[in-house]
Amino acid sequence: MAGKIKNILFIMFDQLRFDYLSCAGHPTLETPNIDRLAAKGVRFSNAYVQSPVCGASRMSFYTGRYVHSHGAAWNNYPLKVGETTLGDHLREIGMDAFLIGKTHMKADEKGMERLGVSRDSIIGARVWECGFDVYLRDDGLWGEGPSGFYDKRRSPYNEYLKARGYEAENPWAENANAGVADDGEIASGWFMKNARKPANIREEDSETPWLTSRAIDFLEERRESDAPWLCHLSYIKPHWPYIVPAPYHAIYGRNQIVPAVRHVSEKTDPHPVHAAFMNNPIGQAFSRDEVRETVIPAYMGLIKQCDDQMGRLFAYMEETGRMDDTMIVITSDHGDYLGDHWLGEKDLFHDPSVKVPLIVFDPSREADAARGTVCDELVEAIDLAPTFIEAAGGEVPRHIVEGRSLLPFLRGEKPDDWREFAVSEYDYSATPMAGELALEPRDARLFMIADRRWKFVHAEGGYPPMLFDLEKDPQELVDLGRSDEHAQIIELMYERLSRWARRLSQRTTVSDAEVVARRGNPYATGILIGVFDEDEIEPRWSEKYRGPARQRFLPDSD
Amino acid sequence: MAGKIKNILFIMFDQLRFDYLSCAGHPTLETPNIDRLAAKGVRFSNAYVQSPVCGASRMSFYTGRYVHSHGAAWNNYPLKVGETTLGDHLREIGMDAFLIGKTHMKADEKGMERLGVSRDSIIGARVWECGFDVYLRDDGLWGEGPSGFYDKRRSPYNEYLKARGYEAENPWAENANAGVADDGEIASGWFMKNARKPANIREEDSETPWLTSRAIDFLEERRESDAPWLCHLSYIKPHWPYIVPAPYHAIYGRNQIVPAVRHVSEKTDPHPVHAAFMNNPIGQAFSRDEVRETVIPAYMGLIKQCDDQMGRLFAYMEETGRMDDTMIVITSDHGDYLGDHWLGEKDLFHDPSVKVPLIVFDPSREADAARGTVCDELVEAIDLAPTFIEAAGGEVPRHIVEGRSLLPFLRGEKPDDWREFAVSEYDYSATPMAGELALEPRDARLFMIADRRWKFVHAEGGYPPMLFDLEKDPQELVDLGRSDEHAQIIELMYERLSRWARRLSQRTTVSDAEVVARRGNPYATGILIGVFDEDEIEPRWSEKYRGPARQRFLPDSD
Repeated sequence: MAGKIKNILFIMFDQLRFDYLSCAGHPTLETPNIDRLAAKGVRFSNAYVQSPVCGASRMSFYTGRYVHSHGAAWNNYPLKVGETTLGDHLREIGMDAFLIGKTHMKADEKGMERLGVSRDSIIGARVWECGFDVYLRDDGLWGEGPSGFYDKRRSPYNEYLKARGYEAENPWAENANAGVADDGEIASGWFMKNARKPANIREEDSETPWLTSRAIDFLEERRESDAPWLCHLSYIKPHWPYIVPAPYHAIYGRNQIVPAVRHVSEKTDPHPVHAAFMNNPIGQAFSRDEVRETVIPAYMGLIKQCDDQMGRLFAYMEETGRMDDTMIVITSDHGDYLGDHWLGEKDLFHDPSVKVPLIVFDPSREADAARGTVCDELVEAIDLAPTFIEAAGGEVPRHIVEGRSLLPFLRGEKPDDWREFAVSEYDYSATPMAGELALEPRDARLFMIADRRWKFVHAEGGYPPMLFDLEKDPQELVDLGRSDEHAQIIELMYERLSRWARRLSQRTTVSDAEVVARRGNPYATGILIGVFDEDEIEPRWSEKYRGPARQRFLPDSD
Repeated sequence: MAGKIKNILFIMFDQLRFDYLSCAGHPTLETPNIDRLAAKGVRFSNAYVQSPVCGASRMSFYTGRYVHSHGAAWNNYPLKVGETTLGDHLREIGMDAFLIGKTHMKADEKGMERLGVSRDSIIGARVWECGFDVYLRDDGLWGEGPSGFYDKRRSPYNEYLKARGYEAENPWAENANAGVADDGEIASGWFMKNARKPANIREEDSETPWLTSRAIDFLEERRESDAPWLCHLSYIKPHWPYIVPAPYHAIYGRNQIVPAVRHVSEKTDPHPVHAAFMNNPIGQAFSRDEVRETVIPAYMGLIKQCDDQMGRLFAYMEETGRMDDTMIVITSDHGDYLGDHWLGEKDLFHDPSVKVPLIVFDPSREADAARGTVCDELVEAIDLAPTFIEAAGGEVPRHIVEGRSLLPFLRGEKPDDWREFAVSEYDYSATPMAGELALEPRDARLFMIADRRWKFVHAEGGYPPMLFDLEKDPQELVDLGRSDEHAQIIELMYERLSRWARRLSQRTTVSDAEVVARRGNPYATGILIGVFDEDEIEPRWSEKYRGPARQRFLPDSD
């Protein structure tokens, strides 16, 4: 730990709650390997994603831009072809960017076609893959129904399993994400009642060890290479289906689960958007104790397996010297309600959904002062892209990238002008809830403004806002959005929202420095606006406009 | 006039004030040809540009999107490569889009290189030229100083003049935009004291007739063609340098100019941004009566010449049948203060700067009812792109194009939900005024919200707003932005600004209809979230997850 940053290992879990790590205070779940990384790095305890849904959140991580800026506001909304990615920025400064695992990237095929960008070209392949060079892409959603697969691509994971002797047509569904019922039938992990069963797969073949092995392959291949890289190791778990192979299925039981953070008062006169989500089948299911007691032990088992795989990966990295030259980040794309606030899944802005774990280990000497510290400043997912650009020796293009580098915090400093509030957004226009609320697509949108005291949510569509006092009500059980007493706070929050919404986010072709440089003299290229007489300006500016008139085309009368 | 729309002739003048036409009430300037078009079409008396500066305004006209959305916020700020243009939309529905004249388009070279879009390809050439196929491109700014030309391209106009026997190196500067002094020296039009001299050029070779001739060439070439086209005929005048050939230089004198709209009270405790513009050399110059009295007759002469050329063009179109099948639009990219409010040029949001003439002639029978009417609804420059798309038979992609079609107004209807306010923006970060006010680039921005009663301007950078009561103070002489009595109006305007700024503008890859279609059933592709027991859903959704488990990989203990 006296090295400097040469590489970056950017590890993302999927749907990992911020508080389901022992270093973050979970009372029964032990994650010693992740905790050890936190002890060597900085853990950010107020890290917000830009949107509590896979696709939109990831597009913000990968572009360093708010959802309102990049526009890919929901799963499978294509990221438009003009957006620049982390990979674009890093390659410009000599660092490669590889992907192992999930991105949920949907390419803007129409935009690529319009610009003649072929998917088969190197440029096109990168546009297609959100700026990454693909070592392995697998989004881990091989669901299949009467209309076919959710994800129409080849499944590297299913190919792997088949090569390992699994005979099912879709071993992701039949083995990795299913147990076996007493009658010998498939007990699909899609049905949460099966969550306590062990998945019908060798543990080492399940998704998390499989991706870890691929990461070790990647590291091994580059062991002797001088070329710096970023590797986005993007796990599929602990995302549903909630089922895990032995022995992880049996480590936790209902005595280890923490009580749901919810109160019956949340169902009295709820905000209409909260109500719509509570009333959907997922909220209904997770409101049942039986569901929580069955699912959460499996979710914890999945996290335990993730932690063990971190131990395996970090041991390999220690052994090969990568701990001395590699920045390591652990985070998630969003959380999981697990029944809190009478909700399941993610989507809204209570902490279990919108906050994520964020641990950054910086191997460089400058980072020694901050090791093992917890930073409670307001941090956003879009801060990682600029952190990586700066760590790789580049200058952050602030006219494109909207986040801010976390390097100062990693080195025990705090910038004077750090942000006062974090922003997150949710576009639920493609969900059944928008239909139930009879909203036009552009009105099914939410904006969160959170500082360290208050969390405010504006809902388009003519609804009142939501407001939580995080100091008096850290569990976010009392919505003050309609409280007259809080009118001033609500006004302040609306002022912040407006300021944020007006921000300069699309002038991405001209940097601030270039703008300032243009404040120079228009006379230099002969644009002499506002000059009545040549005597008003220095002769050199009008040199090109003087001399004898060569010809005369004037009317006779003149 | 009983035809239907086959073609679109989209005529833009540069820096033509909304009130410098006789049909718009100018007391001394006669523009009978433009008036005749207004008598056959609809004149919009409240048409606002999206930014009172060439480049940004035009990029909004050509994309149908606000400046805050496309980001090309000032002259020569490249339009980013992902933006779609009017030409893109029209070609998709079978209409070509040609350019004759000026666009002020600066291509995003870096973005094109990043995506491998070559300027030499058809696609690249269109991206380079803001979506148009170039019949002729000439931005009419062949200024030249010690650092070379303002515009580094070839100048078709200078080439034309040279072919016509003009011997100067830069006949645009030496002939078209200069007179001859008594001593035989060039009397450059850049020096406003020369504005009353006739330009040293044959009238038929000056810029406006030259472009009109090219437009007639274009029409003649397509005379027998069935292929529908939009032609953007984009004049350079009456933009400065203020000088015009005989006889137009002598038609108007100081007795024909209207008094400046200004009051000494505007200089007492002015808004800091207004002050900075009043204090710049242009504002200082135009505050002198001598400057107005010299310049405005030339400006009027330039407009008179434009009108005569419209007469010539429309006569040709009558003769060849084009008046029966061609929609004709006349507008401008912004106005010209000409000393009003102690200002010159454009830039701020008083009517002379931000309002433009807008006349639309629709040859189709459905438009008969509205001929000769004046529409005072709030119209924006971005409304033309959707008008053209609809006129060409297409459906407006509302997830991309932010303006609204004007076709209803052309046909005597008014949509129930027409906009309540118009928005314009100005980014002056690249001007010396930003430097004088010591503003960071992102703080040198203004936003206008105007309805039919009030005009409000928010200034970033910690300044108070500006506010004008258009009913009580139609000349906009009294800034109420700091008036406590108007706090409620100001609050309403800030609420509107926030709503506008939050608008959905970047989800350009998915249409509203596609969003709604996605509200369907996730079960169809086997994504079974929130299901505890298979009995909760119809058997067909879980078909792929049932059947006998083929193999067993479970631990012995299980």
